[in-house]
Amino acid sequence: MNHDRKLRLGAFMRPVSLHTGAWRYPGAYPDANFNFAHLKSFAQKLEAAKFDAFFMADHLAVLNMPIEALRRSHTVTSFEPFTLLSALAAVTEHIGLIATASTTFDAPYHIARRFASLDHLSQGRAGWNIVTTSNPDAALNFGLDEHVDHDERYRRAREFYDVVTGLWDSFADDAFTRDRESGEYFDPARMHVLDHKGEHLSVRGPLNIARPVQGWPVIVQAGASEAGRQLAAETAEVIFAAHNTLKAGQEFFADVKARAEKLGRSRDAIKILPGAFIVVGDTVEEAKAKRAKLDSLVHYESAIASLSVALGHDASKFDPDAPLPETPETNQSKSGRERVYQLARAENLTVRQLAQRLGGYAGLAFVGTAETIADQMEEWLFAEGSDGFNVMFPDLPAGLDDVVKKLVPELQRRNLFRTEYEGKTLRENLGLERPANRFFETA
Amino acid sequence: MNHDRKLRLGAFMRPVSLHTGAWRYPGAYPDANFNFAHLKSFAQKLEAAKFDAFFMADHLAVLNMPIEALRRSHTVTSFEPFTLLSALAAVTEHIGLIATASTTFDAPYHIARRFASLDHLSQGRAGWNIVTTSNPDAALNFGLDEHVDHDERYRRAREFYDVVTGLWDSFADDAFTRDRESGEYFDPARMHVLDHKGEHLSVRGPLNIARPVQGWPVIVQAGASEAGRQLAAETAEVIFAAHNTLKAGQEFFADVKARAEKLGRSRDAIKILPGAFIVVGDTVEEAKAKRAKLDSLVHYESAIASLSVALGHDASKFDPDAPLPETPETNQSKSGRERVYQLARAENLTVRQLAQRLGGYAGLAFVGTAETIADQMEEWLFAEGSDGFNVMFPDLPAGLDDVVKKLVPELQRRNLFRTEYEGKTLRENLGLERPANRFFETA
Repeated sequence: MNHDRKLRLGAFMRPVSLHTGAWRYPGAYPDANFNFAHLKSFAQKLEAAKFDAFFMADHLAVLNMPIEALRRSHTVTSFEPFTLLSALAAVTEHIGLIATASTTFDAPYHIARRFASLDHLSQGRAGWNIVTTSNPDAALNFGLDEHVDHDERYRRAREFYDVVTGLWDSFADDAFTRDRESGEYFDPARMHVLDHKGEHLSVRGPLNIARPVQGWPVIVQAGASEAGRQLAAETAEVIFAAHNTLKAGQEFFADVKARAEKLGRSRDAIKILPGAFIVVGDTVEEAKAKRAKLDSLVHYESAIASLSVALGHDASKFDPDAPLPETPETNQSKSGRERVYQLARAENLTVRQLAQRLGGYAGLAFVGTAETIADQMEEWLFAEGSDGFNVMFPDLPAGLDDVVKKLVPELQRRNLFRTEYEGKTLRENLGLERPANRFFETA
Repeated sequence: MNHDRKLRLGAFMRPVSLHTGAWRYPGAYPDANFNFAHLKSFAQKLEAAKFDAFFMADHLAVLNMPIEALRRSHTVTSFEPFTLLSALAAVTEHIGLIATASTTFDAPYHIARRFASLDHLSQGRAGWNIVTTSNPDAALNFGLDEHVDHDERYRRAREFYDVVTGLWDSFADDAFTRDRESGEYFDPARMHVLDHKGEHLSVRGPLNIARPVQGWPVIVQAGASEAGRQLAAETAEVIFAAHNTLKAGQEFFADVKARAEKLGRSRDAIKILPGAFIVVGDTVEEAKAKRAKLDSLVHYESAIASLSVALGHDASKFDPDAPLPETPETNQSKSGRERVYQLARAENLTVRQLAQRLGGYAGLAFVGTAETIADQMEEWLFAEGSDGFNVMFPDLPAGLDDVVKKLVPELQRRNLFRTEYEGKTLRENLGLERPANRFFETA
């Protein structure tokens, strides 16, 4: 165990918050989805706190939920990631900018080009969160009636990754000679034509942009399935994980790092960052009260729908203010149903509170003082449950302010988090190597 | 004839300049393709001079030219338009941001979403230059072996436009109620599902972004063919024209405005802005000398290739320092060949000078003092040759500085150009109406 290890902190952002009650929280900015000034202030605060990256979630459709839940949700619409992160690149200097982009409904030439452009604009701060899109509503927005099969999507994703990284290597790092005397702008011998013809994709190249500052933008993934873990072990440099317990985190951490080692990669070449919902109070009670207040703002009509889905049973007839009654098992996933009952028992929640928790945010959460939360993060780090976290803020701006003003200084005091950026690029700050160009020796 | 008419000025930008010799010009920034600081300073200078828009050209491939010409060209690679213009949106407040986006190799959902996002980020300054891509090298980058037929591309473009504008109208302007008390974030009755199924495209919608600030970003086009003129008359609000003479400009102006009126549109609903290469000197001789110097920096190997193409005859055997000899007519377009001979005679150019002019920039050019150029612009405006110009700078930054410091004040002195922005959005500054939402009455 290496006690010099430091936490890596990403901010997993939706403009108003991921929590569906957040837009109604006192002091929230309900219009942040389309108000760049707010996003700019969030990114600048995160950079002042030395966060590794601003990570923009994404969807390619209006979210698929019942209209009664949808109409309550501020997550229905927001800025598109490339346009938002490019604008943020112009008003920040250090923080990484990670965009989600799907391999299912876009062309590798476009994706390679936009990430390379973002990397040049930001002078080496771009990251690509590779996702495959399983949302059938998204398929309908791209002329496809049928849902693409899971394994097929992963095979395409793997080929897509090969093409995109190959396109990034179109020019050697020293291809652009710009010799005014001879009039040679670039050396054609240092340009490579990919000529890819594969199972899913046919792309000639070269890419019409110089090699990214980082060689390749940082590769991020979130796959948790067998195919997802293997793709991550082969290609990911940052993994956005989702585990509710340290034990589950440790299992995933050990498994993925072992897979990577088997493939000849270093364990440190992959940083595993579970999402963590963080509520900081001056006392543990204050933090719990904040969360309870936030959960209470999830509209009951949306909340009860989430509980019904989780149970596989219509929960709308239950007494909202009583404990969760026993329900018969259904075809619904046994483990998911069991977690709902565990949660209800562990925190002694009423039906209403449980439903609002599920409708708000029910994943890994650290709720307490800066000290108790730092204790938990330290435990995850040293017990090899993670390399850091993707922080989710309960409400913005106040919940973000609490993290950067209270929690980050405590982590820095413990020497668990940087006080200055180590390098210039996202790669350098994450301690990741700059990839070699597969077609050219480095000059 | 309306003598209160004002010029509209766009800046038609490539980061180093459109002129292929510009990167070798004294004081030029040959690295501007990937140096955002330069682009930021250009945009801020144009904004201080009250330009209507920063217009980013684009290609979806490394340009198709012989490698001996390609290696001399700084236009081979640069930033991608959406990422660049989004970054510029964050560091400017008034200037319009026009991105070129192809209807041939992208999906309307992506295009609609990115322009809407740019429009929200910039608070209403986005414009879409609709192009169809005919470059066969681009097709190969998107898995297509065959060039798409011209008429087919225009039919798809028209349907694509209908889908994109339909997606922009997914939400009524007042759909987002954000009522904290009731918990309703938006009114589902004010959201429209497009459900488009056409000849080329099938897109369900709704778009996952609020209606753009401008209703729709400004629609820009450059088509000059019969199909292009008709599409422009039906849909364009700004036309990027390319005519070398006032007479040709007047013919196009009259034709397109008449077509628009026939369709029930106002003549003023379309602004016609020919590209104009502008070289300003303190004397006419100084301006001509600047242009000659710039042309002389086009490498002869690239230049002579351009001349050979224009003549349909191998020009590499000609004496570079003699006048252009007579050549036999070939299958090459007669009018193009005739223009080359006219140009050689009119300016008494040697083969080298002629070749370098064609390899650099040979379209409409105003070369002179602020006064003589303002005279020419005024003539075009009042003789109904155009509503303004898309200015191309010979070299950057000096050629841009000359325009904003010398020419613009002269135009303002003559009351031909604004001294303050009239409105907040690109549409308002161009004097274009905000389009109604086709699915909802305006509140």
